[in-house]
This record gives sequence, C-alpha cells and structure tokens, in this order.
Amino acid sequence: MARKASLSGFPEWLPQERLVELHVLDVLRRTFELHGFTNIETRAVETVGQLLRKGEIDKEVYALSRLQADEGESSGKEDPNQLALHFDLTVPFARYVVENAGHLAFPFRRYQIQKVWRGERPQEGRAREFTQADIDVVGDGDLPFRYDVELALVIAEALGALPIPDFLIRVNNRKLAEGFYRGIGLEDTAGVLRSIDKLEKIGAARVAELLQEELGATAEQADAALKLASIRTGDMSFVDQVRALGVTNELLEEGLDELSQVIAEAVKRAPGRVVADLSIARGLDYYTGTVYETVLVGHESLGSICSGGRYDALASKGNRKFPGVGLSIGVTRLVMRILSQEFAAANRSVPTAVLVALTNDESWSAAQDIAGNLRARGIPVEVAAKAEKFGKQIKYADRRGIPFVWFTSEDGSHEVKDIRSGEQVPADPQTWTPPAEDLFVQVTPA
Amino acid sequence: MARKASLSGFPEWLPQERLVELHVLDVLRRTFELHGFTNIETRAVETVGQLLRKGEIDKEVYALSRLQADEGESSGKEDPNQLALHFDLTVPFARYVVENAGHLAFPFRRYQIQKVWRGERPQEGRAREFTQADIDVVGDGDLPFRYDVELALVIAEALGALPIPDFLIRVNNRKLAEGFYRGIGLEDTAGVLRSIDKLEKIGAARVAELLQEELGATAEQADAALKLASIRTGDMSFVDQVRALGVTNELLEEGLDELSQVIAEAVKRAPGRVVADLSIARGLDYYTGTVYETVLVGHESLGSICSGGRYDALASKGNRKFPGVGLSIGVTRLVMRILSQEFAAANRSVPTAVLVALTNDESWSAAQDIAGNLRARGIPVEVAAKAEKFGKQIKYADRRGIPFVWFTSEDGSHEVKDIRSGEQVPADPQTWTPPAEDLFVQVTPA
Repeated sequence: MARKASLSGFPEWLPQERLVELHVLDVLRRTFELHGFTNIETRAVETVGQLLRKGEIDKEVYALSRLQADEGESSGKEDPNQLALHFDLTVPFARYVVENAGHLAFPFRRYQIQKVWRGERPQEGRAREFTQADIDVVGDGDLPFRYDVELALVIAEALGALPIPDFLIRVNNRKLAEGFYRGIGLEDTAGVLRSIDKLEKIGAARVAELLQEELGATAEQADAALKLASIRTGDMSFVDQVRALGVTNELLEEGLDELSQVIAEAVKRAPGRVVADLSIARGLDYYTGTVYETVLVGHESLGSICSGGRYDALASKGNRKFPGVGLSIGVTRLVMRILSQEFAAANRSVPTAVLVALTNDESWSAAQDIAGNLRARGIPVEVAAKAEKFGKQIKYADRRGIPFVWFTSEDGSHEVKDIRSGEQVPADPQTWTPPAEDLFVQVTPA
Repeated sequence: MARKASLSGFPEWLPQERLVELHVLDVLRRTFELHGFTNIETRAVETVGQLLRKGEIDKEVYALSRLQADEGESSGKEDPNQLALHFDLTVPFARYVVENAGHLAFPFRRYQIQKVWRGERPQEGRAREFTQADIDVVGDGDLPFRYDVELALVIAEALGALPIPDFLIRVNNRKLAEGFYRGIGLEDTAGVLRSIDKLEKIGAARVAELLQEELGATAEQADAALKLASIRTGDMSFVDQVRALGVTNELLEEGLDELSQVIAEAVKRAPGRVVADLSIARGLDYYTGTVYETVLVGHESLGSICSGGRYDALASKGNRKFPGVGLSIGVTRLVMRILSQEFAAANRSVPTAVLVALTNDESWSAAQDIAGNLRARGIPVEVAAKAEKFGKQIKYADRRGIPFVWFTSEDGSHEVKDIRSGEQVPADPQTWTPPAEDLFVQVTPA
C-alpha cells in the first residue's frame, strides 16, 4: 500500500489487495441475493442527453469519441446523442427500467455492482473510477413504504458482514423536513435543505445567516430550522423532540410516521446501527421521502460510505411513474480505507491451497493426475512447472502463502507437507483434503 | 430475446438472461481459481500512447474527454497522454506487470474478467462493449514451455464446464510455420502468415496468388506453404505429415517439438477438444510460439470464442523481459449465442427460493423473523410487502419462478407450499430447508 496509482484517481490493487476487494464484493452479493435481489448490469455509456436529464452534474462527465472518427461523425459536446461514461448507477437503472418495463416483474428488486466514472479532481476518498454497489426496489405506479424500512435493514446486514469498524446509518425524511419548514412559514423548502446540508461544513451560526440572507427567514424561523436539524436519536424519542417544537403540518406528520416506521424496526433488528438524524439533507439529490447516509464511526471525514433514498418517480414513461427506493455503497472508498487502515487482510496472494512438486521433469503429467484428483474435490491446486530442487519449489509456495506442498516418491507413495509447521504426512490423492480454513483464501480482520 | 439493444453494439440483458451470464462468469472464476490463477482488475482507461504502442489498432479506440474541460486542458488526439478506454485486457496487463513487477511473484498467474470497448461498426457477434475473461502466466526473464501446455488444458476444462455445444481448440506454433517458410526459402515470414490468415475467407487458390504476387513466391513455394496449412490432426500424426513435406530447419524442429507437447497432453486429458491446425496464423498479433483459436462446432461463422498465444516479451522494462502465454475468452459473444440459440436458461428470474406471505399487515415484522431464520441457513428469502389476498401473493412468487410460499396462521403454526405441485406441508422456520436443487437458481442446458 505504499504504491501510488500510476494514473491519479484510477486506483488499482495488487493481487493480495484485490482478494480483499473480492471478499467485500462476494459478501455484498451473497447478502443481496439472500434478500432476493437479482443482478443486472447496464452498459458503461449513456447518451449525454440521458445523463444530464436532471441537470447540474455535467462538470463530472467523461465524454467519448472514436479516436479516428469518420468525417461527419458527431463528437459535438452540445449533441445530446453524444456518448459518455455513466457517473452513477441510478440514472442508467432508471433508463433500463423504462426500456424494459414490459419484461420486468414489479416491484422489481435489483442489485448492480459496477464501475462508474467522474472527471473530478482526485482527492482522499474520491477517485475518478470507482465501484458502486447499489440495491433498489422500484414499483409500477406505487411502492409500499415498507421497502424503505426493509432497505435500511438489508444495508445494515450487508455492511455488518464486512471487515469494517462500526458504522452508523443516519436516516431522515424529506416530508418531515419540508412539512416542518412549511409549518414555520418557509416555503422555499429546497433552499432551506441546501443550506441545512452545509451544517457540518460551515456550522450552525453561518447556516442561520444564510437562511436569513438568502431565503429571507426571520431569526426565529432560522432558529427553528436549526433546532429541527439538531435532533438525533438512536431510539424513537425524536418524535417527542419534534413535537416539542410545536409545529403542526400534515406533511410533517406523514414524514414523522414514515421515519418512525424505519427507526422502530431498526432499533429492534439492527440495534446501534441506525439513527434518526434530522440534519441529513442530501443536498442536490431529488429524493421525495426517506433519505439515508452512512458514516464509519471514527472515520467521519471519509464522507458517506452508503447513501440513498426514496424517489416518487425514479423513472417515468408518459403518465406511468416508477417510484423507487435504494441505496448505493461506495465500494472503492470502503476498500481503500480497509487497505490503508489494515482493517483486514488476505492470508495469501493466490487461491492455491496445494502446490504439487515435481520429483523429476518427466513426472509433470503424473503430477497433473494428482492435481486433477484434488481439484475434483474442490481443492485449488497448482503443479510446479520445473523439477527444481525441493527447497526452491517450497520457496515458490512460501512466497505466495500456499500452505501445502505435495511430494510423490519414485516408488509412487505420496506425502503432503504443511510448510508453515513443517509437518509432513502420508496422503492419498483420492481422499486427502486440507482443513476447511486452508481450503480458500481467508480475509480476516487484522 | 426479441429485444434489441437500445444503443447498437451495447448489449444489455434482462434479469433472467443476466443469470445465465453470471453462471458463465462463476464457472470461469471457479475453474481458474481451482488452477491457482489469482484475480486482478486494471482501470478501464489507458493513455493513448500505451494503447498504440504496438500500432495498427487506433481505429477502434474510444478516447475520453471531460465534457466541460477546463481551459487549456488537453483533449488533442495527437497527445500520447490522452486517456482512452482499453480495447483488450492484454495491453493493460502488460502495463500492470511492468509497474508492479517489484510486488509480484513470478511466474505470475492471473485471471482478469472485465469489459472492453471497441469503436467498431457493430455486427453479429461483435459488440462495442463486451466482456473478456483472460488467463495468462507471465515470467520474469524466462517462462517454461509447460505453461503453453497447461493453459490449453485449463481452457478446455473451463469451456467444457459451460452450457455450450462442442468446441475445438485449434493450436499452431509460429516457430513451426516460420521455420518451414524459411526452410523453403520464404524470408518474409510475417507476410506469409498474413496471407495464410486469409485462407478461410478467400480460399487456397487466391492465397497462392497473393503469395506469388505480393511476396514473390514461386508456385512451388506457394504450394508448399498451402500444404503445410492444410495439415490438421486430432492426434500426433501432424508430425509425420509435416516431415513428409521434406523441409528441414532448426526453428521448424523446435516448433514441432513444442506443438507435440501440447497435443500429446491434450489427446490424453481433453480428448476430442484440441487439434493441431497448421492453418492458424492469428494475423496481426505479435505471438512468437504457440497460437490458439477456438470455434464452437456448428457455429464456426461466429468466429473464435477463445484465442491467444505465447509472447517472448509480453512486456519489458529496460533489459528485463517478461515472456507470457495466455488466452482470452469472448464472454459476451458466447453468452449472446447461448441466449439466442437457447443452449441454456435460468429456471427463475430472481435468487429468491421462498416468499414469506403476510396474513395481515401487522405480521410483517414477524414475517421478517421467519425470513431471518431461513436466511441464517443460506436460504434466499423475500417477505411480501403487503397483506394482499393469498392468491395475489402466490402470483407474485409465480411470476418470478419463486418455488415456495410460506404461510403463518393466526395461531402461529407454519406451512410451506410448493407452488409448482400445490403441495402444502407444516414447516418449522428453525429447521425447514428446500431441496438442494431449489435453493439457488439453476442454469441448465435446454
């Protein structure tokens, strides 16, 4: 991990590091599939028109052009049919749902794990190419609120299975916030959310100023909005704290009810991992109800490792609306932190559990027979390519962390050596199996 | 499969199709890991300078530029630091090996499964975005020939585990061909190879003309070169057939010996799947020994589904050379054919094995307890989101191919229904398990 990416913002892992990333991806896949999410992939490119549908993010997009474009072939950046790399998995998913609506069963639960690209200036925790792991449920026309509750629980389970420190999923609800702002007479609710979103960065005093200067709020209104944003509870007491502010509004009640449903189940099923945090705004994103953010405890400066929320219309097709709720895990950001902080490591650099050594160069084919016998029982095996001195063949295994070396004598008898303990015992290629913990690479907390 | 990609050349799969692709990817990963190959990923972009190092392929490259580039930011296509998407996994792997040589254990065995992009005109079997699965072994300074033998066997095993028809790995050796051409007095061996490469497309008579017109060969020389290219045997008899042509050359002998090693082991370990085919030239690629191509029997027009070969120097760093041998499977091409020909299909569209039905809306949390019990034993489970009529809940499962629906009575007793047979039996959430064949999605030959 002393290495630096040779192209800034495009991290690459060494084999032993990649095994940690693969472990993370395997855990996520397994958890999502246990909860019935099915996998899709979308193409890496979208048209610029599709990507910019919601505006305000064009600065980050990588456009594509054929290096030797034909005469007359468009590469104009004003052209909405210009191809560009996707910058998240939500926009492509929305397009996929609309295109394939006739072939999908709704509510449609999918997970999607792919690279995305953003032409940002690279910095700690931000790469130009990175992997996201998304889960979403999307409905046709309507989508029960229970999915908002369920997704928080699935994500808590998925993150809880990873080799990372404690995390905290912070949940809020736009209806609650917007209803509250309206209840105190602030109608530009999007403007208030944008200001509240800056709370962690610029502090409460400055946000109060912004609300008064830019949105024309009174000191009392600014104070009330900040009081709401200061509420944060790991249990249901946020409800009483909001009520104590004395604001009544129908949308506020609806939001309170929704957030209560999430927190009530989370307290029971993921204790200590989910909090109601009424400061969470998710600035520019177009959520319409629940919003989620997640921090690694003690690593808050890393930013959110998993965010998302509810859209009334993730996608639409004429009058037909597809509401959705989903979350996106920043896999690369997490893996970078796991590796740099040594939260976990792989115990070898190759899948191989056994190296079959060669007694002489003619024994290669016989060694392949032994390897085939072992592989038939699911044991990852390599065969030495040359009959070097046994010391050198053992060193080959040792450098890679391969735990066992297999020897065959001239008389055809077999022995297997655990090169960590030095113990060498007779073994039968038809029946011998390594201990379960040595069969596959183990990724374990440091 | 009546659907067309909404962007020509960028295929996307429906969930049930993606499950077939996932099965293919899982089989390949498992086979490669059983043989001790470790995984890496490289970034999607390289510099144009890196990509064009070997020349002649610039027409296919997609260049990148930030949609709103800063003033003075380069997007000149003449700039070797211009970023572009990789068009294969070999060039990035060679760069990765050189950059990380100090951190890798040689010989280094890796597999790599990623998307690649080519700005070609899309056509049957050719996409602009597609997935390749590569295995390579790369040495530091030297690399025993045995790896050329081993890789043919690993690929035969990997392809043999896929739901595809019979395939044939055609192997040749550049040393054999080049030695032969020199032995008959043709010195422009690259030129001869390029002509021979056109054999399948334009026929023997036209190739003979090309050899005479463009390379100044005599009619006898052209005839000899074509006789060599006509040799194709599933056993070792190619050796005698080559010798019968009466040409002697040291390089030819070396090539004959190498190809014999591959075929001798393949006859034994992968009978009927590997042939010596002396017409295989691999046109523009810079191989220096073994070359491989693979066709699906009865689907030859699809082109090669797996190709590769040996490089004396896959990469180099000053005087240090890294020879390599590897093969690349065209996963997308294979999956397209599997789906369009219905060679195999997934038996449901979601991972879910059990849907826990709701008796009333208040039972959702209790249903989550049941689901948690089942998941703890590795069973993929969904919980219904609404207490609709049981008929509707069963229909939800049926539309997705979910085989079991779980019911809990008001008195707390449990029953599980196999919705295919209609059989409904009492079940305990702590112990009930579906039959092994229903636990996970099955992808089976049609």
